[in-house]
Amino acid sequence: MASWEQVRFTLTPRSKGTYLITDEVLGKLPQIKSYEVGILHLFLQHTSAAISLNENCDPDVRVDMNHALDRVAPEGNYYIHADEGPDDMPGHVKSTVVGVSLSIPISNGRLATGTWQGIYLLEFRAYRHARRIVATINGQKKTSTPS
Amino acid sequence: MASWEQVRFTLTPRSKGTYLITDEVLGKLPQIKSYEVGILHLFLQHTSAAISLNENCDPDVRVDMNHALDRVAPEGNYYIHADEGPDDMPGHVKSTVVGVSLSIPISNGRLATGTWQGIYLLEFRAYRHARRIVATINGQKKTSTPS
Amino acid sequence: MASWEQVRFTLTPRSKGTYLITDEVLGKLPQIKSYEVGILHLFLQHTSAAISLNENCDPDVRVDMNHALDRVAPEGNYYIHADEGPDDMPGHVKSTVVGVSLSIPISNGRLATGTWQGIYLLEFRAYRHARRIVATINGQKKTSTPS
Repeated sequence: MASWEQVRFTLTPRSKGTYLITDEVLGKLPQIKSYEVGILHLFLQHTSAAISLNENCDPDVRVDMNHALDRVAPEGNYYIHADEGPDDMPGHVKSTVVGVSLSIPISNGRLATGTWQGIYLLEFRAYRHARRIVATINGQKKTSTPS
Repeated sequence: MASWEQVRFTLTPRSKGTYLITDEVLGKLPQIKSYEVGILHLFLQHTSAAISLNENCDPDVRVDMNHALDRVAPEGNYYIHADEGPDDMPGHVKSTVVGVSLSIPISNGRLATGTWQGIYLLEFRAYRHARRIVATINGQKKTSTPS
Repeated sequence: MASWEQVRFTLTPRSKGTYLITDEVLGKLPQIKSYEVGILHLFLQHTSAAISLNENCDPDVRVDMNHALDRVAPEGNYYIHADEGPDDMPGHVKSTVVGVSLSIPISNGRLATGTWQGIYLLEFRAYRHARRIVATINGQKKTSTPS
């Protein structure tokens, strides 16, 4: 039975950094368990933050990611658009480079991610922002009662 | 009622730069209004241009984006593949880094984008190119008559 | 008739480099031929490799891509996370920047890619790795017998 569901939620506000949010996201989406097969689409409604999949184990990876993206789009005297502060335009560049949506397959009631893959929020603004996500699930529901 | 629609169109030819194309794209896709929930998938059939979502208000962001991506993949004596000109291989790199497709949720007949999100075409070749998009809409149609 | 299919497969193990894998992927997915319209979603279950679409003709593009991404995320004394070798953390950065999934439209039994677009595997680890893909096809099947 084909099905569509859409859920909107706001992530815990966070300041600049890279965060593992797999549990926070899955906690908002218990519906995934009822799908035999499908796609979870996560969409961040912002232009100076991003979402990605990355290594879910060593917190050092998240620190390295911040610095690596600061090298890709450094703060400094490079930008015309600077009214909102030195972190704003680099945030737009990083958001474009990393992306604001993820499509993740669902298999038998779970996300079909690899062992080491977790969902990251990358916040590029210095001050805490509360970021909104639109989650859309599309797939085929299980015919039997989910366990 | 589940539904699929696919529309092909060509964007206005543009030379190197970053362009806000939200209105041009939506003008080709009046069908979106009839969907209760779904996903709009935009796919650019090219390898030296890209599409992304970014800040829809200040045109300076688009100028800064060009320069920022020129720093990520500079023109110069770095590339073997140079027969088509110095802008070609950097264009392939930028296209890979930014991406050639977007998946955007549809909610109640509209794209569920954030207040500041617009659709960007990033053209990486110096000369005007006419870029082709394959738009695929998949979702559940409204049961009542669309307003 | 709406349909979902999901197929898992492992790519030929490869060492660091960029590879054109269109034929290898399509060989695993003969089902595509039976879809009138739909989306093929390819998902790589890893954090130090990536998939993208890029120029399918000149092998020099793949060599240039390796070097260009090495400039975006260079090996060197930049990273805290270094236990698995100097190629590991740059691999996570490149994987985030390029991405691990592709959504490609299907039209009349074929991928609706442009003339010059091919599917690339980008392997960022020096040693050969066998990378796993989860392919999900969602679409409307042809009503007549596929040729």
